[in-house]
Amino acid sequence: MTAEAPYTLVLLRHGESDWNAKNLFTGWVDVPLTEKGRDEAIRGGTLMAEAGLLPDVLHTSVLRRAITTAQLALDESERHWIPVKRSWRLNERHYGALQGKDKKATLEEYGEEQFMLWRRSYDTPPPRIADDDAWSQIGDPRYADLPDEIVPRTECLADVVERMLPYWYDAIVPDLRAGSTVCVAAHGNSLRALVKHLDGMSEEAVVGLNIPTGIPLVYELDAHMRPLKQGGQYLDPEAAADAIKAVAAQGR
Amino acid sequence: MTAEAPYTLVLLRHGESDWNAKNLFTGWVDVPLTEKGRDEAIRGGTLMAEAGLLPDVLHTSVLRRAITTAQLALDESERHWIPVKRSWRLNERHYGALQGKDKKATLEEYGEEQFMLWRRSYDTPPPRIADDDAWSQIGDPRYADLPDEIVPRTECLADVVERMLPYWYDAIVPDLRAGSTVCVAAHGNSLRALVKHLDGMSEEAVVGLNIPTGIPLVYELDAHMRPLKQGGQYLDPEAAADAIKAVAAQGR
Repeated sequence: MTAEAPYTLVLLRHGESDWNAKNLFTGWVDVPLTEKGRDEAIRGGTLMAEAGLLPDVLHTSVLRRAITTAQLALDESERHWIPVKRSWRLNERHYGALQGKDKKATLEEYGEEQFMLWRRSYDTPPPRIADDDAWSQIGDPRYADLPDEIVPRTECLADVVERMLPYWYDAIVPDLRAGSTVCVAAHGNSLRALVKHLDGMSEEAVVGLNIPTGIPLVYELDAHMRPLKQGGQYLDPEAAADAIKAVAAQGR
Repeated sequence: MTAEAPYTLVLLRHGESDWNAKNLFTGWVDVPLTEKGRDEAIRGGTLMAEAGLLPDVLHTSVLRRAITTAQLALDESERHWIPVKRSWRLNERHYGALQGKDKKATLEEYGEEQFMLWRRSYDTPPPRIADDDAWSQIGDPRYADLPDEIVPRTECLADVVERMLPYWYDAIVPDLRAGSTVCVAAHGNSLRALVKHLDGMSEEAVVGLNIPTGIPLVYELDAHMRPLKQGGQYLDPEAAADAIKAVAAQGR
């Protein structure tokens, strides 16, 4: 089954989670949304409904904050009944031994240079998490069928690109080619990895890329699955611009 | 991929919806759960978690009250991340021209004999709904890809059995054969249709069958996809027995 280009892809980053609010490194730890995060998700659904942007199929990570965000947004836009596919390949970056740690305390312990390398460099992963760490995912049933060597103990953004892309090619692209409007509900870093690929960004450029939470980002794609418009289009461009500025200011 | 019997199937009927509370015929009209219905769903999830009953895949109808019930139950039992499949073949019975009508007013208008025939007979459907009726589903995008002749305008329980069974054979059984514990979140009549099939019930017997809301009903199935124990096993047998008695008393 193939349909003609352009194909429509909608990216949705989850809203605020418990651990965003508590300023802890989260990664693969499966924390719920806060009330604010739930409101962001519903607002995302309102934006999709207002734009007449109606996903035919949903892809999510296996983490609750992305799953719930998609449920709330699709319920709000009357698309709660579409098929759902999930994959660990859409998960947030694994934050290694930093998972569960306070960001401020980590900054003080390791210093700003090391801290920023872990947070923002393309290819420097945090230290590996021990399998018996309280915040390790070893033993979690959702990863039990994966051969051990593919379950990450830490990741840099380059690692996320590498493990996310097979899912893009093998699961998302076929749905697009079939003519479906595809919604991908995921995380800051798995979506940065996808946008890097779509826009053909350099490793240097993606380091400066921020994707706001809760504001659907729409890509129209050509027959080669490349964007008609670099960077896509946010459904609320002003709110997106403000959110990106706010994150940039935080970084200072 | 095949696994050996016994296979495990979990049936979950959605909790109270807005229109249950308002005493309106619902059918294919897509109404949300009430707060009580949401609590029933969460309780269903607690029962599954306590029983160590961990679904690997979820099948739902395309109606919000079943979808939300499953989401809440699986979120509660830490299985929110499993794959999800949906089909109109798991929908509630289409209630024809009665959809949106008050049950008490309908009883008064048509008399008890006709009313009970529509509600409880195996093969007497209510009058067909007009395509321009406010509560018709014609034009609903979730059925837009179906050839018109297969979209029901009314159904009796026999019709539900006929349109549900292909999904049982083609979608649910393969997941069971693959070794998955399968959860089916659906409706009073689509689940009655499935239980009739599983237990080999007569048309007369199924008329008296009531499935309580929110209490998971577990079937262990043999290599022929037949129950090891007729009628399966409710996770809270006492609550289920009480609920069945209450429904039987209502009927008087």
